[in-house]
Formats: sequence, structure tokens, C-alpha cells
Amino acid sequence: MTHVYPHVRIHQYLLTQIFGADTDVGKTVFSTALALASAVCPRTSSHVPRTLAPQPGAESVVYVKPVSTGPIDDMDSRHMQRYAPHVNAETLLQFREPISPHLAAIQDGPLPVEAQDTSIVQRLSTWLQTQTSTTHDSSRAVYVETAGGVHSPAPSGSSQADLLRPLRLPTVLIGSSALGGISTTRSAYESLVMRGYDIDAVLLFANERYQNDSYLTPYFAERGVRVFTLGTQPTGAPPSRDVDSRRDQQRMQAYYMDLVHGLPTSTSNMLDVVRHLRTQHAERLARLSTLGERAHAHVWWPFTQHARIPSKDVMAIDSAHGDFFATYAPSAPSKVTPVMDGSASWWTQVVGHGHPRLALAAAQAAGRYGHVLFPGAANEPAVQLAERLLGRTSHTIAPGRGWADRVFYSDDGSTAMEVALKMALQSTIRRYDPSAVTSAATRERTRRGREPGSLGGRPPRAYEVLGLQGSYHGDTIGAMDACEPSVFSDHVAWYRGRGYWIAPPTMRMHKGKVQIDVAPTDDWAWRPNTEGPLATLSSLAAAYDVEARLTTPLADTYRACLHATLERLVRVERRQFGALVLEPVVEGAGGMLFIDPLFQRCLVDVVRARSDLFALRDMPLSDATSSCKTDQGAGWRGLPVIYDEVFAGLYRLGFASASSVLGVTPDIACYAKILSGGLIPLSVTLASNAIFDTFHISDEKQHALLHGHSYTAHPVGCQVALETLEMLEDMQPQQPLGGSVWDADVVRQLSFARGIQGIMALGTVLKIELATDGASGYASDASAQLVQALRTHDIHVRPLGHVVYVMTSLTTPTSVRRRIESILTTQLLS
Amino acid sequence: MTHVYPHVRIHQYLLTQIFGADTDVGKTVFSTALALASAVCPRTSSHVPRTLAPQPGAESVVYVKPVSTGPIDDMDSRHMQRYAPHVNAETLLQFREPISPHLAAIQDGPLPVEAQDTSIVQRLSTWLQTQTSTTHDSSRAVYVETAGGVHSPAPSGSSQADLLRPLRLPTVLIGSSALGGISTTRSAYESLVMRGYDIDAVLLFANERYQNDSYLTPYFAERGVRVFTLGTQPTGAPPSRDVDSRRDQQRMQAYYMDLVHGLPTSTSNMLDVVRHLRTQHAERLARLSTLGERAHAHVWWPFTQHARIPSKDVMAIDSAHGDFFATYAPSAPSKVTPVMDGSASWWTQVVGHGHPRLALAAAQAAGRYGHVLFPGAANEPAVQLAERLLGRTSHTIAPGRGWADRVFYSDDGSTAMEVALKMALQSTIRRYDPSAVTSAATRERTRRGREPGSLGGRPPRAYEVLGLQGSYHGDTIGAMDACEPSVFSDHVAWYRGRGYWIAPPTMRMHKGKVQIDVAPTDDWAWRPNTEGPLATLSSLAAAYDVEARLTTPLADTYRACLHATLERLVRVERRQFGALVLEPVVEGAGGMLFIDPLFQRCLVDVVRARSDLFALRDMPLSDATSSCKTDQGAGWRGLPVIYDEVFAGLYRLGFASASSVLGVTPDIACYAKILSGGLIPLSVTLASNAIFDTFHISDEKQHALLHGHSYTAHPVGCQVALETLEMLEDMQPQQPLGGSVWDADVVRQLSFARGIQGIMALGTVLKIELATDGASGYASDASAQLVQALRTHDIHVRPLGHVVYVMTSLTTPTSVRRRIESILTTQLLS
Repeated sequence: MTHVYPHVRIHQYLLTQIFGADTDVGKTVFSTALALASAVCPRTSSHVPRTLAPQPGAESVVYVKPVSTGPIDDMDSRHMQRYAPHVNAETLLQFREPISPHLAAIQDGPLPVEAQDTSIVQRLSTWLQTQTSTTHDSSRAVYVETAGGVHSPAPSGSSQADLLRPLRLPTVLIGSSALGGISTTRSAYESLVMRGYDIDAVLLFANERYQNDSYLTPYFAERGVRVFTLGTQPTGAPPSRDVDSRRDQQRMQAYYMDLVHGLPTSTSNMLDVVRHLRTQHAERLARLSTLGERAHAHVWWPFTQHARIPSKDVMAIDSAHGDFFATYAPSAPSKVTPVMDGSASWWTQVVGHGHPRLALAAAQAAGRYGHVLFPGAANEPAVQLAERLLGRTSHTIAPGRGWADRVFYSDDGSTAMEVALKMALQSTIRRYDPSAVTSAATRERTRRGREPGSLGGRPPRAYEVLGLQGSYHGDTIGAMDACEPSVFSDHVAWYRGRGYWIAPPTMRMHKGKVQIDVAPTDDWAWRPNTEGPLATLSSLAAAYDVEARLTTPLADTYRACLHATLERLVRVERRQFGALVLEPVVEGAGGMLFIDPLFQRCLVDVVRARSDLFALRDMPLSDATSSCKTDQGAGWRGLPVIYDEVFAGLYRLGFASASSVLGVTPDIACYAKILSGGLIPLSVTLASNAIFDTFHISDEKQHALLHGHSYTAHPVGCQVALETLEMLEDMQPQQPLGGSVWDADVVRQLSFARGIQGIMALGTVLKIELATDGASGYASDASAQLVQALRTHDIHVRPLGHVVYVMTSLTTPTSVRRRIESILTTQLLS
Repeated sequence: MTHVYPHVRIHQYLLTQIFGADTDVGKTVFSTALALASAVCPRTSSHVPRTLAPQPGAESVVYVKPVSTGPIDDMDSRHMQRYAPHVNAETLLQFREPISPHLAAIQDGPLPVEAQDTSIVQRLSTWLQTQTSTTHDSSRAVYVETAGGVHSPAPSGSSQADLLRPLRLPTVLIGSSALGGISTTRSAYESLVMRGYDIDAVLLFANERYQNDSYLTPYFAERGVRVFTLGTQPTGAPPSRDVDSRRDQQRMQAYYMDLVHGLPTSTSNMLDVVRHLRTQHAERLARLSTLGERAHAHVWWPFTQHARIPSKDVMAIDSAHGDFFATYAPSAPSKVTPVMDGSASWWTQVVGHGHPRLALAAAQAAGRYGHVLFPGAANEPAVQLAERLLGRTSHTIAPGRGWADRVFYSDDGSTAMEVALKMALQSTIRRYDPSAVTSAATRERTRRGREPGSLGGRPPRAYEVLGLQGSYHGDTIGAMDACEPSVFSDHVAWYRGRGYWIAPPTMRMHKGKVQIDVAPTDDWAWRPNTEGPLATLSSLAAAYDVEARLTTPLADTYRACLHATLERLVRVERRQFGALVLEPVVEGAGGMLFIDPLFQRCLVDVVRARSDLFALRDMPLSDATSSCKTDQGAGWRGLPVIYDEVFAGLYRLGFASASSVLGVTPDIACYAKILSGGLIPLSVTLASNAIFDTFHISDEKQHALLHGHSYTAHPVGCQVALETLEMLEDMQPQQPLGGSVWDADVVRQLSFARGIQGIMALGTVLKIELATDGASGYASDASAQLVQALRTHDIHVRPLGHVVYVMTSLTTPTSVRRRIESILTTQLLS
């Protein structure tokens, strides 16, 4: 896959790329005829004189062959020059050997720089730009002819369909009129569609014998693609070569005349094709230029104050490739601009947009299964994915290895967390209050929903979660209830914050040092020194070496504060907890907060050491613990620990699971986003057998986890996830402790910038915390200026209050990151 | 797409189908060589004598060409008989004309029955069955040779890759070694993968000039497929034909000897291929035979009491096609059995499993976009889908037409309902209690989560939903809270039923009549006659003619009871409501309850007439309404009305939206399941502008609907949904009022069965309510017997308590439904 985006893609002009369903289907002949027809056919008049000479009011035509092989005289652009001399025809890269470019290119050693995918696409893009920007009217037609079939290799070995994908030019497919041509044409079409190309037309020779057109015309009509059958019977093809070159040329010219203008016996002619392409082009441009305003009129965006978005500011995305969106802006109607996806499309992207391997994986499972129901059943991708995530295979990447035994599938991070909470709360209740199991089951539900202001006829229960301030677990009510009150929940009538959230120590790099701070709350009453930062460390590597820090005085402080807080919450405030819920290492939506992992480690340790507290049931409490079971079933101790790794997991932050940073595994963990390759929704909740066993204490259905979604474990999502994990496995993206894809020197340098509270880089994330005068969280607009500055450089990021972050995929080329670093340096240090 | 499933698919034997990347790539030569090698290569010994004669310990070989054209002497099976005389070779369907089967078949008129897709696949299936069941060892190899390329047309015009998909035989692809062969081979491979085939190997001729193998070998290795290059340089192909037929045969035999056994210069030989196919086969069988137990060991099923499912009872699904799963059962290890998907895979299926149009649509959007973030942005499939659902296009199917203005995207029915509830509750609060807006916004959040047993520092609010008993809206806490307490919520600690649920009148056909009953609760105190059914109607058509029934006495009763109930709830019980929530027409998960649509219509009308009640704020109440706005903003009156059409919408019940049955539109509605073609998760919440406007009362972000999912409006889901709607549009599946796909006479007949409380058929659903002795709901096992009986006929359904239902897709062939009806008749009426 070409990980590059040419800087400008022209769209105002009639650009067409020509792919062949096979070699030898007549690509050059059709290209030449198209070029002739474009120049002959006036755009506004229906009268066309029967000539091959350019006519006023038609298009001026340019033609390019990006790569060509073979003796110089056979070059397709020479053919073009001969029969369409008014056309500006060019070949960008020529190999003399008459063999496939991937063989020709390496005849004399390694692949030359100019033959690399990036070079070719960049060069073609620049060429197209030059050709279209020098003409300041809209009457230009550009034809790009590819070599061989759709998957014929470029010099690098990439298929041409993949090579040219960054430009996503409107496409004409030359079908095959030969025996077997129905099959090759359909397959070539599918390969192009799978790569997201728009197919504007299929052209093929009239062939009396095989009549492929009579099959393909209705076939493609059903798919919205028009087929043009050209040339005259019996084969439609050009006359066979004449030894007399002048006569040959004359016969060929006569042939082109017939092809372009048609004969009374022709089904269609090339003028029809050109008119059709113009219409397609105009319609596409109309769709694209109105896309933003139509979205503005009809959709309801997530997390968006519509009143703040004028129609013209909508980012209309025509397509995406690698790290870039191809966007259309009304302010620049002549082009489609590549905009860097600097938030990894809401933290989902990891191998780049539009990756053909993921598209094929999705199609494979769609073709094999579609979707099949999951309860009591098994589909292969779902079972394989479960085994892989649990570490039952030999693969390196297995976030559940060593602790998890079960995979529950759902649709997104929020539902994965709802599942996790149901698992954890019920496990706690069944262990610490076994009577709840039977009482719930035998309770009569006859007066349900009848008491005024009642809670549906049930006594309120007070099981809460223990969590950290700044956490965010999703938008459904259960997931929201596990988070502290915030701007997200302010206007949600049914939100009830069901928990206690401790203020966590956070980390930031400031003036070259890693600083750990904490808000001065009751939780930190045991802190020995209340002035200044909690600690200062020399490097991120040191900060993330949790094992080494376990014996520091800071760890002792953490443990002391935590024991005291828990004692207070349970014994004084009489709270009852059902789960410990954490976003390990980084709290994402809460503001990209980097939590001291040592603190999270100590929190897990302390909670697991205090089954005595969590098992307490009778209030008021004495020091003696009640008689209920505290450690039965083993497996989990204290409280079930939930890691919400929806954001952080699977190498967003340089590790598959934060367990490897914290040095301690959870009882339940959630993954999503990257899991399904940034393509479609899928999430998993992993759980240990100790949790799972709670749900088959009997064989009664009511004791089971009665949760599920229609598309639970949908094969398409699971197959895409398997392919994603396979690609991650190949990349081996493990970073060293505290490492990131960003340049450490630049990060350090930026940490000295004025107007900055701190900076952090970990894995693919670069976070800039801007100084504010009091405002914080989503409500703040302090970062708008930096976001706007990046936007002028075509980098799209979304701020989180006073925080601006840039996030890449794992395949982002270094050059793209270096450019971003350089822009940030200029912006912040000047 | 072939909507048929051959009744038994053999799996124990080495079955291989042979597809060509193009015509003329050597399919018959390779098939013959494979057949020879299979018979020569012993399965357990590595020593193979250099001969073409069958060897002990090797496989007995059968070969079949399903369709062939051309003069009888050229038949591929003749070639096989000549060079591999020990092979049982057969052609099932032969056309004399040497042209493509789709042309040959209709030379003399319409397509003969035996040339229809169904006939061919059935015949092939039967043939394979005979061939493999008569041999009672496992040493049989079967080769199925296709004609032309992967998409070469069958007699019907279907591509062969589509035609043979129901059998999903393991596949060998013959690659092309010609110029352009890299492209055609890759494209053919992608077309096969997109249809869910397993490609076991790619074979191609050694060709010195083009060296396609040196490109394709690593390419396919990366995709887990092995390439075998066969024959000797320069072209690998058979010797050219000799005029002397005896010499020709000798040369050909010598060629086969070399192909099978190799020469010192060969890269590989056919024995290697056969050994590889055997390994692939054994591995696939091992994977499939352990699939059930591996799922049993590693996954956590939704809605499933694991203690009740022994490992052997897991339904291992190898693939699915049309209406059928291809399942593997340890009790029948020699075959893969087609099982009818009688619950439409949890109500999601509508065009059948594994539909190639949906697979291609998914791949197209994956290739064009992958996923791109949505807030403030626009991708084309999402915008087009929104316009279509809202009725902004000329399409017939548009559930939002006439009332909805906005589409909010999310992932499943449950999240769609969470969104709907947030929309509705906040709209109500902002209209009836505007002070809540500012007070929430300005509230200090400094002591968040600090008070023991507090609700996160906020005063509890009491906005509830008004709903119906038996409703079910999803599994996330917010969606659950909108449902009455039930077995689903019994063990969910955080569940709080936040609403009042009226007992609704339900309908069932019993002894030929449609009967309307209601539970005797307080809500029905105004009912004039408390004995017997509420009403009896002559037909379903009459029952669903809501407009005609509006003037009946029953409608008056409904209205009177509803007014009285609302008065009581608000004035006496002092409840405060935020939304009316309905599953129109049928309550799905609650037990497939058919609610009297007249009652739901009256409920909506009455709620909309009583803004006076819902606007009341100060308690205790006087008769005078308080001063707050009641009808400002217009658009919605009384309460926002939410239709949860996740189950019922988009033709599950014969209509696109229940609005057409009830005769009244909602303010908010949810769709999912069928929406995305039964392929991947996607849901939408439609809303009117009156609802939408509530969320931009200011330009402050906090007033917006702060909800969203990472994959909001993912292009793949939206594109699949567009394709699904397109297919529905073509089918025009509108049923007459109260109509269904089931035979009305059979339904009527079944309604007289003993042991049945009632029966209902609507749209694609056939519901059988079994008589029970008191037990009800999910807890009941009364229906297990009927489910088991259907299972013995390979029909898979899932009971809902004492209810058994069968649900088909819209493309299910009539023969499949007739068979089910016949089984049910036998089962219930005998």
C-alpha cells in the first residue's frame, strides 16, 4: 500500500484513468479514440462534424502513461502522437525491456528511486497539477493510461490498482471481448471496486462471436455502470497491421473515424462515451460540492454543537487513504485537498485508511457468512479471534494472555464497558452477598412499576464503582454512571454517578523534566508534603519503569493514601463497592490525562489486599468483618478490577495491554477501536474464569449474563480484527518503556515552550497541554488557535478543552510526523 | 444468487473444485494431472513409483464437470477418461454448441429446468453424495472442474463462483502464466475470496518468459496460500497437438508423467500438490471438528446459560448461504449439514446470508474510506443514507418521510435507544422546565462523588418513560431502564425501572378468529366488561385496518382507559414523564407479543392531547396547569413519542415503518438489524427538527447532544445499508394490511390445534404460542419440545419462553416455507 498522499488532486477537470480488464483488450486504442473524441465533441452543441480534427468548444486533451515498458517506438504515447497529434502525450517512466515493469525496473540492480511507488504517484500528481493549472478554463480532459491489467505490477511490485489509489481518479474499465472476457471483466471490476474507485464506464469491442457485451451490459446496468460496445463486427478491433506503414496509418485513421463517430451499424460511438463521462463528472462534482451542506442539513453529529458549525465549515470527505482524507472545501472548488487525519479518526486508525487487506478480509467473511447468530453457536473468525486475544495461540499480541479465559463480544467501547460492569457487579454481589442471588430470583414482580417515584418496585441498591477522576467509559447510561459527573453528563437526565472517583496523580513533561502532580483533595490528606509536584523524574523511561519505582517513598505515599481513603469510604462514609474501574496509563476522552502508572499499580494492589473492607455488609460497622465469604473462588481478590483499554490498548500507546506497564493484570478488560482495524465497530470484554464462573452458579437461565447484541461476534468484524492483529504482529510495534513514534528531542524542546503547561509523547500520541487561565475540560476554547494553525497546514486535529493532541497510525511515514513536529516547533517556540 | 441449499454436503472426503483465473489456463490438464496424482500417491508412504497407474493406499478418484459445452468429443471428461482411465469421470450437463453455457442453454428457447441454478447445484450435490456414500472408506478424492473463468456464466447467467457457492467446496485456482496473468490471477483470487471460498492452492505453468510464478508465489504466501509452479520450461504447457493421434496420446502421457512426478528441473510436481491438499483438508477438518468445543472453552455467549450447553451441542457453523447455515455436528462427522436459520440470525437477515452484493458494497466502502471520523464532517454513504431514510430522495422506502429531519448514527438498537431517550428526555425537560437547562450548566461540580450514598452529588430527578408491559429496548442500562422489570434485569445491580408500563391488549388467532385480550390491571378499570376477550375480529386484515377501527366502541374504551390512567399517574401518583416509548405492532424480545395497533394509535393520540398533564411541575397539584410552556416549539405535543422499530421496521413485519399501520408518526424512531442487511452493526435514531432544535438553544457545547461512538456513521455500514435498501426497493416487499409470507390457510388451520394458545403470522414472522400451565416468559421451557422437533428437521429456531416463532428473510424460496408449514402441521395437528 502506497503510504503517501500527493499534495493536491485536481478535480475540476475531466480526469479519467483507464484500466484494462486484461492485457491486450485495446486500452491504447480506446485511449486514443477517447482523446480524439474529447477534442472533437463540443461541450455545448450536439452537432459534431465528422472529423478527427479538434473542434472549438471541445476539450483540449492531455494524455499520460505513468509507466511504460518496451522499445521506444512501441510506446503507447507514440501511438497517441501519431493518431491524435493535437494531444499533449507523455510517458513519465519508460523501461526499454519489453517485460513487466517489476522485472524491468530491477534488471540492473535495486529499484531506482524514481520507480518507487511514492515517486511515481508524486510525479504523476505534479504532472496532473501542472497540466491543469496552466489552463485556466475548465475545458481540459486528462487521460491516464495504465499498463496491463488492473493488478499488473508497478516497478515496485505493487499492483497498479493499489499504486494509483491515493489519487482515486475516476475510472474507465476496458472490458475484454474475448473468450472468457466476461469473467476477467467482472473480476477486474470487483478488484477496482474493492479499492474504492468510481467506475464511470466499461468499454469493449463489439464481438459477434462471444457477445460479451450482451451479458455485461445488463450486469453492469444493475450496478449503475454503463457499458459501451464499440467498433464494428465481427470483432470491433482495429484492422490488422499493414506492412505498408503509410497504408497502415490510413486504415488506422479510418478506423478511428468510425470508432469516434460510429457507423450506422454501431451500438455506440466514442462521442457518446465522452458525453457520458462529462455527465458523470458533473454529477460527481455536484454531489461532492454539496456533500457538506447536505450533511449539515440532514445528519445529527455526535458530540457537536450544530449552532457552531456553518455549512461551509463541514469537512466533506470524498475518500481517505493512508493517513489522509481527500477533502473538498467550497473555498477551493477546483481541487480535492489531502488533510492529515491527526486524531486517527477518533482514535480508531492503526494501519491507515482504505487498506486493501482489510477490505478483502471484510469481503471474505461477508461472502462466507454474512452474519450468523452467536448464542450456543460458533463461527470460525469469532472463535479464532477469541483464542488469539486470550493467548491460546503462539502469537505475541494477546492482551488476555496469562489471566483471561473468556471473550464476550459486543459493538463498541461503551457496550463493552456495560458488559464489564454487569460482570463485575454481579460477581461482587454473588460473592459478598449470596442471598441477593436467590432473593432477586424469587422476588415477585407483580406490582412492577406501580409505586409513585419508585424504582420499578425494587429497593435501591448502592453498589458503586471505585474509579479515578477524569475517567470516561462511554455514552450509554451504565458506562456513564461509572464516570464522575462532567460536562458529558450535565444534561443527561438519567445519569447517576454511581461511584467514588479518587483524584489521580498525573504526569507531564515540563522544561525537560517529568513532573507528577495531584489535585489537593481529601484523598491526599496523607501526603507528607503538600507544596509543589509530588515528584520529578528525569525521563519517561524512568517514569514508566513501574517495577523499579515500587520501592520508592512515593509508592509508600500512594499506598498510605489509598488505604486511608478506602477505610474512610467504607467505614466512615459506609459505601459499598462492586468494582475497581480504570483506564490504565491514559484517560482519553477525559482530556488525554497521563496518569502515573505507579499510582494505578498501587491502587490495584491495595484494592486486592482489602477484601476485608469490601466484604463488609452490615452497617453500622464494627472492626470485625462479617461472616460472608471474602476470598472464595479465588481468582479475584478485593474487587474485580476492570481495565478499560478501549483507547490505550493494541499499540495506541506502544503496548498491547497496559498490564505490561502496570505489572499487574485485571480480572476484566475491554478492547475496541484499533481492534477492528479502524474499519467497523467491534468490541470485546475479556474476563477471567473467576468472573465467568459466577454466572453459572446454577443451570438457571436467569443466573446467566443476559446481555447480547444482534450482531454479537459478527464474522466480518472478527475477520477484520484477525487481519489487523496479523498486520500488527508483522510490524512488531512494541516500543521501549515510555517510548513513542515522536522525536524525543523535539518533544523535550517543546516542553520548554512558553504558553505550555506540559507535553507528553507515548506510543502514537503527542499531547500538548496549553496554559489556560482557569478554564478546563471540554468547555474551554483555549486551544482553538493551535488547532486552527494546524488546519492551515492541512492537519486535522480535535481539541479536548485546553489540550491539543496529534495521533498517527502505526504506518504513518516518518516524513509526515517530521512535518508535524516542524510545524509545532515553529508554532510554539517562535 | 442461488437461493437453495443442497441437502447434504460431504466433508470427510477430499473434495476439490477447480477454478481457472481465465479460460485456457490449463484447467483440464491440471485436473487430469491431479486425478492421476491422487491415485498414484499413497496416503501413508512417501515412496511413490514412477507410474501413472493407481497405487494401493492412494485415493480412488472421481471427477465431475457440472456443465460443459462443445462437441461431445472435446468434452473435458473424455480427456480425463483417455489419460486417467481409472477415474470415474462424468459431465452432468452438456450443451453441444461450442459457446458459453448461458448462450448455449437458450439456443432453443427458454432456460430448461435442468439448467437452472437450483437444479445444477442440487444435481451436483446429489452426485457428490452418491459418489462418496457408496465408498465406505475415507480414501476418495473428488475433483469438480468448472468451465472458463471464475465468473464465466452458468446456463442461467449466474457466474460460476456464485452458482457453486452453496457447496463452498475447497478450491484450487489455476493461475495464468501468460502475459497479464499476474493481474487476472490476483483478480480471480479476490473474486473467489469475496465469496467466502477457501483457496487451498494456486497452480500454474512454469513460464520462463513472464515468470508470473516468481511474483505470485510470495504474493500468495503472504495471504497463506501456496503456489505450485508445474511443468517444465519454457512454457510448462502440454506438447502441441500431433496429427498422429496415437503419437499424440503417447506424448501427452509422457507429459503427464513429468507433471505428476516431476523432473529434476521442476520446481514442484503434482504429488506435492496432492499431499498439500490432503494436509489442508485434514487441517480444515480438524479446525471444523473442534470449532464447537473451542467456542465452548473460550467464548462467553450472549443470553446463554453456559451450564446448559454441553460442548457437543454447540452449533459449529462453517459458513452460511441464503437461508441456511452449513453446520458441523460431532454426531455426523462425515458431513456438513444445512440448517435453516429460522430466527433470521436474531432477526437480522433479510436478503440471505453471504450475499455477494453486500460483500462488494462492504469492500467498496472499505476501499474508499475505511472509516473516517464524523463530527463536523461528511462521508458520502452516510449522507446518502440519511437523505434516503428521511425521504429526501425519490425512493419508496423511507421510514422518516413526512416527519423526520435528522439522522443520528450509532452501533446497535440499544445505543440507538439510549440516544432516543437522551433526545426525548432533554427535549421534555427543556420545554417543560427550562430552568433545568441553566441550573445544570452552572452547578458547581466541586464536591462530585463525595457524599455517602449520593447520586454523584446531584439531586435525583424523576423523569420517567411511559411505556407498555412486555417491551424490550436493549441491554445497556439506559435502554433497560426504559423497560419494566423482568428476568433480563433481575440480576442487574444498576437497573432501575424508570417508567410506568401499561398492560397492552394483545392479539392472537385462535380457532380461526382474531382475539384481543388484556391482563386485568388497574389500567383497565374503565373497561365496561371484564369477562372474556376485549374483542374478536374476523381477520387480520380487519385487525390491522386501524383507520376503520378508530370509530369503534373499542377505540372509545381505549381512550377512556388511557385518559384515566394518565390522570391517575400524574395527579394521584405524582409521576413526571419525559417520553412515550413504544415498540409498535410487535414487542419482540418480550415474547413476540402482537399488540393491538388500535390501542397504540389511541395511546399516541391521548398522550399528544394531554400536554396539560405532562407540563405540570408543582406538587401537590391543583387542577390549574402551571405556567410553563406546553406547546411552544410545536412539532411535538404532550410527550416526545419514540418508536423503537429496531425489530419491526424495514419489512420484518411487511411494512417499512409501523407509522403506516398506526396512521400516526413518531417524533423519534430507531432502526437497526435489517438496516445493515444482516451483515454488520449499524443503527440510526431519526428525529424531527422539533427535537433537534432543543439541542441548539444556545451555541454552547454543553447544550449539544454529547453522545457518540468511535465508528459513528462508518462508511462500510452506511454503504451496506444503501445496498440493502436498494435491494428492498427492487423487491417491493409491501404486504397488504395484516399480510404475511406464510400460507394464510395453514395459519388458520394451525390456530385450531390443541395445545396452542394462539398463532400469528405477519410479514416474515410466524408465531406459535403454546399453552402452558402458568409459567411464562423466558423462564419457561414449555416450548423445548417443538424446538427440538424442528431441529430434527434441520430447522433452527430459538424459543421465547412458551413462544416458538419462525422468521425468514424476504428472499426465502416458497418451497422452504412450505416445508416448514408442513412440518408444523404434522407436529401440531397430529
